[in-house]
Amino acid sequence: VVNASQLPDSGFSGALVVVTGGLGFIGSNTVRRLHDAGATVRVVDSLVEGHGGDRRNLAGLSGLDIEVLVADIGDEAVGDYLEGVDVIFNLAGQVSHQASMRDPAKDMALNAMSHCRLLETLRRVNRRARVVHASTRQVYGRALRLPVDESHPANPIDVNGVAKLAGEQLHMVYAHAYEMALSSLRLTNVYGPRQHLLSDELGFLPVFFRRALTNQPIEIFGDGEQRRDCLFVDDVVDALFHATSDAAAGRVYNVGHDQDYSLAELAEIIVRRSASTGGLRLTPWPPEHQRIDIGSFRSDSSLIAAELGWKAQTNLVDGVDQTIEFYRANPWYLSSI
Amino acid sequence: VVNASQLPDSGFSGALVVVTGGLGFIGSNTVRRLHDAGATVRVVDSLVEGHGGDRRNLAGLSGLDIEVLVADIGDEAVGDYLEGVDVIFNLAGQVSHQASMRDPAKDMALNAMSHCRLLETLRRVNRRARVVHASTRQVYGRALRLPVDESHPANPIDVNGVAKLAGEQLHMVYAHAYEMALSSLRLTNVYGPRQHLLSDELGFLPVFFRRALTNQPIEIFGDGEQRRDCLFVDDVVDALFHATSDAAAGRVYNVGHDQDYSLAELAEIIVRRSASTGGLRLTPWPPEHQRIDIGSFRSDSSLIAAELGWKAQTNLVDGVDQTIEFYRANPWYLSSI
Repeated sequence: VVNASQLPDSGFSGALVVVTGGLGFIGSNTVRRLHDAGATVRVVDSLVEGHGGDRRNLAGLSGLDIEVLVADIGDEAVGDYLEGVDVIFNLAGQVSHQASMRDPAKDMALNAMSHCRLLETLRRVNRRARVVHASTRQVYGRALRLPVDESHPANPIDVNGVAKLAGEQLHMVYAHAYEMALSSLRLTNVYGPRQHLLSDELGFLPVFFRRALTNQPIEIFGDGEQRRDCLFVDDVVDALFHATSDAAAGRVYNVGHDQDYSLAELAEIIVRRSASTGGLRLTPWPPEHQRIDIGSFRSDSSLIAAELGWKAQTNLVDGVDQTIEFYRANPWYLSSI
Repeated sequence: VVNASQLPDSGFSGALVVVTGGLGFIGSNTVRRLHDAGATVRVVDSLVEGHGGDRRNLAGLSGLDIEVLVADIGDEAVGDYLEGVDVIFNLAGQVSHQASMRDPAKDMALNAMSHCRLLETLRRVNRRARVVHASTRQVYGRALRLPVDESHPANPIDVNGVAKLAGEQLHMVYAHAYEMALSSLRLTNVYGPRQHLLSDELGFLPVFFRRALTNQPIEIFGDGEQRRDCLFVDDVVDALFHATSDAAAGRVYNVGHDQDYSLAELAEIIVRRSASTGGLRLTPWPPEHQRIDIGSFRSDSSLIAAELGWKAQTNLVDGVDQTIEFYRANPWYLSSI
């Protein structure tokens, strides 16, 4: 149904699509775009506490078109949801590096075992579905060279990276052993509307936005000179759509931004664009962060550009402005109640 | 206690050592060498059906020195066994590629989740133990170049390879995050005494030996031209002992043999040395094997030679002769009763 040479959104009109993790950050943005493109959308989300899944992320959508199943993707019951589906965006997972070190078995369960069971269910009920899995640049660990392309060794330095890599590789095993159209995208740091801002453990970007929008100082660990490429969530949804094309079957792609910034620069931009009175301050590394810090990172996304025609479209300042505007209009994201 | 510059066995006199999977093939050979070297040995083995764990593999050892706990390595109860231990040879796992595709969740549980729980237990009760984990060359998938060194990408093509890689990488995460002396060895095809010969799913070498020793034809899939390096189990035990040295902490090493053979050559050698009347025959690929076949493979073990001083000592014909002699003297390995 979807072809890389078409504008990606157009291919989803009339399609039946499942989004796992569809109540979360990237998931809910994906559901919204699919809905606008005319797809019938089913959501599977286990609403794991503290990980950003929230029914309010789908507020305002017509309830008639979107079914929501609250379940782990590894549950047997999910099989009924997958039959006859055209496309599955498999975005369910745990993203916290710190939580993965505090409770490794839980991270392995959510990011690897549940995906193993989902794939086995899918093999049984629907081998023809196109599946795009959300992996992470965390699978690389510390970069041996910059930018990092897909041939860079995957040596994860925290349990989250190990579990996400296993989840990604399981998709590739099924793609090749059973000729299923599965792909996986190694996403860099993502920001934008509908991110869970209240945890300190879901990446630095939501923390930066929360503190700036509440006029608290942004704390930067160490000297703030580590560099990152950051991606606006709309660009991620574009990449997910592109990865449903035939050419993506059995392939793993980096999805990042050509432009990188130091953490101090990122904080300054967010402070300035939000006119935060909190500013920023440098603070020593907490040991539980430092032991799993990867240093500087920048993705090389030229493979997905060459093979699928995707490239990030949103520059940082535009993305930051859209993000700030969204949270100002939806202040519950900043409220702990 | 153990130093790479010493003869490895001498360092184990008086040491307290745990061998997980110690009732299995490589495990029982390790237990015997440790016992001979004067170590006090504790075994943890879950005796998973069909995977080669058998109390008879430790027959003839003095029962007083060797405790056996029948448990999954992820069980809480294992913690009591790990306190105060000097060295752990963490050899527990499932080795069948076919079984991993039939029951992926079980393979992930045995090769990844249980190791995750074991490491978490170990972090809690004994961070000073030296641990050597048995990984596999299966983590590489199909070789992009031969021989394969440790910088070759790890792109496993079956669930067993994914799960073993996750288990290996979890050891590395703990080694680096918590400064624990953990290492992992990617073993090539291993043969020798005390291997489970009666399953067709634990690698081709035990099948070749069983069929030759019972005068049945050895069946070779396809043209028999795929090449493999094969390692006698005594050489594996040597490598495990070397990997307890300080230099191995946080490191992953290939453990293979410089000399490779085609499967047809291997079968001919085993037929000839055993004087089997069954011979060998070529047969078409069964699809469940072909879809996860890796083609030719040869390990480059120069890293462990350079860093730890280990090198395979046993040539194929000597190893095959010792193996045949052992099974002729212990015929229950060939009996399904």
